[in-house]
Amino acid sequence: MILGIVKEYISSSSKVAYLGPEGTFSHEVALMLLNGIMIPVKGINDIVKGVYSGQFNYGVVPFENNLAGIVGDTIDALIKWNVGVKASVEYRVSLCLVVNNEVNSISEIKEIYSHPHAIEESKEFLSRLNTTIRQTSSTAEALNMVIGHSERAAVASGLGARLRGLKTITCGIEDKPSFTKFLILQRDVSSIGDRSLIIFSVPNRPGSLYSALKPFAEAGLNLTMIYSRPNKMGPWEYDFILEVECSLSEGKCLSAIDELRERSAYVKILGSYRYLTIQGYDDS
Amino acid sequence: MILGIVKEYISSSSKVAYLGPEGTFSHEVALMLLNGIMIPVKGINDIVKGVYSGQFNYGVVPFENNLAGIVGDTIDALIKWNVGVKASVEYRVSLCLVVNNEVNSISEIKEIYSHPHAIEESKEFLSRLNTTIRQTSSTAEALNMVIGHSERAAVASGLGARLRGLKTITCGIEDKPSFTKFLILQRDVSSIGDRSLIIFSVPNRPGSLYSALKPFAEAGLNLTMIYSRPNKMGPWEYDFILEVECSLSEGKCLSAIDELRERSAYVKILGSYRYLTIQGYDDS
Repeated sequence: MILGIVKEYISSSSKVAYLGPEGTFSHEVALMLLNGIMIPVKGINDIVKGVYSGQFNYGVVPFENNLAGIVGDTIDALIKWNVGVKASVEYRVSLCLVVNNEVNSISEIKEIYSHPHAIEESKEFLSRLNTTIRQTSSTAEALNMVIGHSERAAVASGLGARLRGLKTITCGIEDKPSFTKFLILQRDVSSIGDRSLIIFSVPNRPGSLYSALKPFAEAGLNLTMIYSRPNKMGPWEYDFILEVECSLSEGKCLSAIDELRERSAYVKILGSYRYLTIQGYDDS
Repeated sequence: MILGIVKEYISSSSKVAYLGPEGTFSHEVALMLLNGIMIPVKGINDIVKGVYSGQFNYGVVPFENNLAGIVGDTIDALIKWNVGVKASVEYRVSLCLVVNNEVNSISEIKEIYSHPHAIEESKEFLSRLNTTIRQTSSTAEALNMVIGHSERAAVASGLGARLRGLKTITCGIEDKPSFTKFLILQRDVSSIGDRSLIIFSVPNRPGSLYSALKPFAEAGLNLTMIYSRPNKMGPWEYDFILEVECSLSEGKCLSAIDELRERSAYVKILGSYRYLTIQGYDDS
């Protein structure tokens, strides 16, 4: 079973930092794939810094969403601190309609609370209900607004509902599938896995990015992701984060990276890792 | 004078949509560079759609920030609607400390309101003051919180302060220079300018991005920006937005784009334009 692959090797005394508060999708991923003491942490940078310094054994952070793109704070923290990737997890998020325990029917709901992204993602479902929609700063806050108010509902995660003693009327109310990739971070840089993550920057001159990608193209290695991010050197200088479908234990992968080094201002390797696909927590 | 380059050709009856509310940095850029009836619009997509449909003659939207990177909503709207770029404006944002008219000294301030980004950007300045920091959802909201409260201040734009009858105690309080690029959009796709903007997507196979960049590298054309964005075709398929330092009126620019067409799933040209650099509005 896929979950076992990761979980079985993890000590139950390891410290797992995830992007909190309790009941976020990062929390769901941490519970599904890791063992240990679960620690909610407010900022992505603090999680990555804590993994780098040894304060946490593992960190779980959102990385990329198929609708909204890359998570800038995660890239910035990966550029700043030296950590390794243990796994990349493609997670199909399931949005639930959450109410108090005494509520039995959608018709009892007058107001629905959620974060603008979750409202946008379940727009079709919500448009069929005759309720007022109210925005909150997070889906966790939306859940808190529902506690003790039987005329209110939240669009949020099933786990978040359960942790607050609320119940889900229905899950999977998103209009179209929404996938978020999470990274499980650790201190060590591994060379085992099917994908590898690399950060690099190229000199600002014609052909430099083209030249940096050449070694991968010539080795027939597929790039599964490339994002650019302004770096802190000058106003419009960029770092690139590249995911390539190969393992650092393979010769052709290592040679391509060696060639990249010669063409780049700098190269940082975050290691090779497993790419996992899991389904969202669904309590209904 | 640089401002005249754009302004003098614009009719005073043209409709200019900018990302509102009044007093945003998009509003500042619109006032500095354009003539016409200024219309605050809440969403980026509605501005781009309105320029496409002819509802607005021009649209002003944020595009890229040297600290936070690309503005996802702008890319998504440019992918969705067919519009042209009239100018790209590099704008040095100036953050001001804003108070009520009767306040004369920083020592009178007990609470400072602002958006988390602006608080982060002026962290050093704020750490020297003995005040409570409170977060708001926008710098415009921060300004509204200050009206009628002489013990409060906001970190916001000087124009926003002036439009609300507030005053600035000091401007330029950001820790390090923050630049934001804005796009001025129009319906027509121009071939005149020093830079050109192109959106394309490549097949998901080894070497495809490398191959797409080849024509530009071989023609010695500098790429000033490249961003990837998940497209709506499949979970992990990408569009790329590329800014290249050439004009569609030049043969080598056109040939490179023609070659790109042959290597891409699709190509969309947003035209050539002037690249302008301006300083933020400073009322102090």
